[in-house]
Amino acid sequence: MRHAIVLAGGGGTRLWPASRRAHPKQLLPLGAREGETLLSATTHRLIPLVGLERLWIVTAAEQTPAVWETVPEVPGENLIAEPVPRNTAAAIGLAAVFVRARDPDAVVAAIPADQHVGEEGGFQQAAEQAFAAAERTGNIVTIGLLPTRAETGFGYLELGDELEPGLHRVARFVEKPDAETARRYLEGKRHLWNGGMFFFHAGRFLEEVARHLPETGQALAAIAKALADGGPHVAEQVSSEKYPHVPAISVDFGVMEKASAILTVKGTFGWNDVGSWTSLADYRPADAEGNVTQGLVVTHQARGNVAVCEPDKLVALLGVHDLVVVQAGNAVLVLPRSRAQDVREIVRLLEAKKLGEYL
Amino acid sequence: MRHAIVLAGGGGTRLWPASRRAHPKQLLPLGAREGETLLSATTHRLIPLVGLERLWIVTAAEQTPAVWETVPEVPGENLIAEPVPRNTAAAIGLAAVFVRARDPDAVVAAIPADQHVGEEGGFQQAAEQAFAAAERTGNIVTIGLLPTRAETGFGYLELGDELEPGLHRVARFVEKPDAETARRYLEGKRHLWNGGMFFFHAGRFLEEVARHLPETGQALAAIAKALADGGPHVAEQVSSEKYPHVPAISVDFGVMEKASAILTVKGTFGWNDVGSWTSLADYRPADAEGNVTQGLVVTHQARGNVAVCEPDKLVALLGVHDLVVVQAGNAVLVLPRSRAQDVREIVRLLEAKKLGEYL
Repeated sequence: MRHAIVLAGGGGTRLWPASRRAHPKQLLPLGAREGETLLSATTHRLIPLVGLERLWIVTAAEQTPAVWETVPEVPGENLIAEPVPRNTAAAIGLAAVFVRARDPDAVVAAIPADQHVGEEGGFQQAAEQAFAAAERTGNIVTIGLLPTRAETGFGYLELGDELEPGLHRVARFVEKPDAETARRYLEGKRHLWNGGMFFFHAGRFLEEVARHLPETGQALAAIAKALADGGPHVAEQVSSEKYPHVPAISVDFGVMEKASAILTVKGTFGWNDVGSWTSLADYRPADAEGNVTQGLVVTHQARGNVAVCEPDKLVALLGVHDLVVVQAGNAVLVLPRSRAQDVREIVRLLEAKKLGEYL
Repeated sequence: MRHAIVLAGGGGTRLWPASRRAHPKQLLPLGAREGETLLSATTHRLIPLVGLERLWIVTAAEQTPAVWETVPEVPGENLIAEPVPRNTAAAIGLAAVFVRARDPDAVVAAIPADQHVGEEGGFQQAAEQAFAAAERTGNIVTIGLLPTRAETGFGYLELGDELEPGLHRVARFVEKPDAETARRYLEGKRHLWNGGMFFFHAGRFLEEVARHLPETGQALAAIAKALADGGPHVAEQVSSEKYPHVPAISVDFGVMEKASAILTVKGTFGWNDVGSWTSLADYRPADAEGNVTQGLVVTHQARGNVAVCEPDKLVALLGVHDLVVVQAGNAVLVLPRSRAQDVREIVRLLEAKKLGEYL
């Protein structure tokens, strides 16, 4: 049967001050619909493909209550808690152990919780093709996104042979390019953005983990044995003992770049990793002056700004242009739109100044 | 005896969003010392001149509790409440009625609550000279400020004959000048800023009000009679009936520009009307990058900004310059420093949009 694992363990700070340690990006109301969280949008995108009973969410233990509050329709036993965050290779592996225990022949889509999809139908179609290819070939299949701009912030997939319309071998994974290389990728149409969405037989994935990340493989095997022999509570105890010692490494770097025979489906459905505040301007409509806003924002002779505030709060902009202004919780952030990627510098500064209560 | 009336009835919006209808500028912690309100600074500047027992505050009825909380040392019977705001001519008149009832020969300093003074000693000296001149001559005496820049935002006094060092007749009051005229005033040294500080015999002031603002004069006479015959509670009842009908007019326009033989003491003590957010930069020290801040403000590659937030809040500025950023209550304001005077445009916009809960 088909299953989906939503990867909801991220604790990113690029959307600070709205995203916090205890309230990460996937829990922010940044879906296409006003008020909808990215996690909720992602979950509802996957339910039609696999059914609610086979929709799993893996998240950090301390985020489990907030996650369940956001998507209460997901069965409680399908929420899998990482005792500590150990990045995506381990998180997908942990979830795959639980999925396979329930369904030994499970074919799984592992999908980040914090991305935006423009055309739901296009996503469904690409996911259907990726599921089918994973089932038929036994290989790991990813969805790559046809670039729409010379983006230097993403990793890319280089396309190999076309196996069927829209389905290619991955020739290789390539790191974030410089601007000139990104421009060539955009024009050449032989490279796709790596969107971090993977489809695979649970068993095959765990084999790849065991091969390329043996420590992780051993920990996961111990958890799988505890689950089979002792049930979920024993598995949880073993997990809390073993999991903290596995390397924190991304699935892309730790598994996918090393695995053989990866396939990719070409996606063209309007995709955004919501990697910075300016991402909002990529998929939310702007007003006549080019301001993209969320919450109550009043502008006067202001243009090209991205402004966000919480319910019951107000942001007023007068005569400013091309700024990002965010009010969230106990903090306000102001920076030029062109420097939206540099929010991490503020985060580092707050860490250095021991102002953790604002992170 | 010498008395002082602190004029604390203002409801200005130029420091929105920190100043609100219910929380005006004089109650903001914008004194020279961190955390000190302008009202508190003004009150403590006057106590050495007149003594606590002769320090009066006139304020809007609904602001009385907040005012008393800010300066609890002021005797309760010295707080005079305007039933409704009717600008400074009526407010000073109302206070003068109460002062004269207690002390028929009172000489009064009427001082706005919402100004900043740089050198307290210089202010004391000028006020001493103004009190003495008012006592000796029986005329109304003002303190004018020697301009330090070609300011177009203030009214001016044109100097007449010098009566003693630092004491002149006022030849005339002049309206806010254009930039060229302001430049001439600055160079000519024959014009002073009108700072709205007046020293006078209470009886003389009430005569001038009766002459130039007869409706106000009649209302004040009725309140004075009620106070003499029936005491404070009866006076309050008469005030709540009569006061709302007096014209709302400033003391400058309604009385001073029409009164004869006004004198002025030349003040050089570092004076600021705190008329906009950039005023803060005139008397608060800037950091090495020229940022003037109040509250917890973290900057990175940001210069020349004025940033203000409340206790327990944080403002983070990255890569922006010459902005005003204010967090206060349920609102955040961002605008260029060069447009600090235009906050009223945002206030008008909020009124037009029926967003009064943010004003």
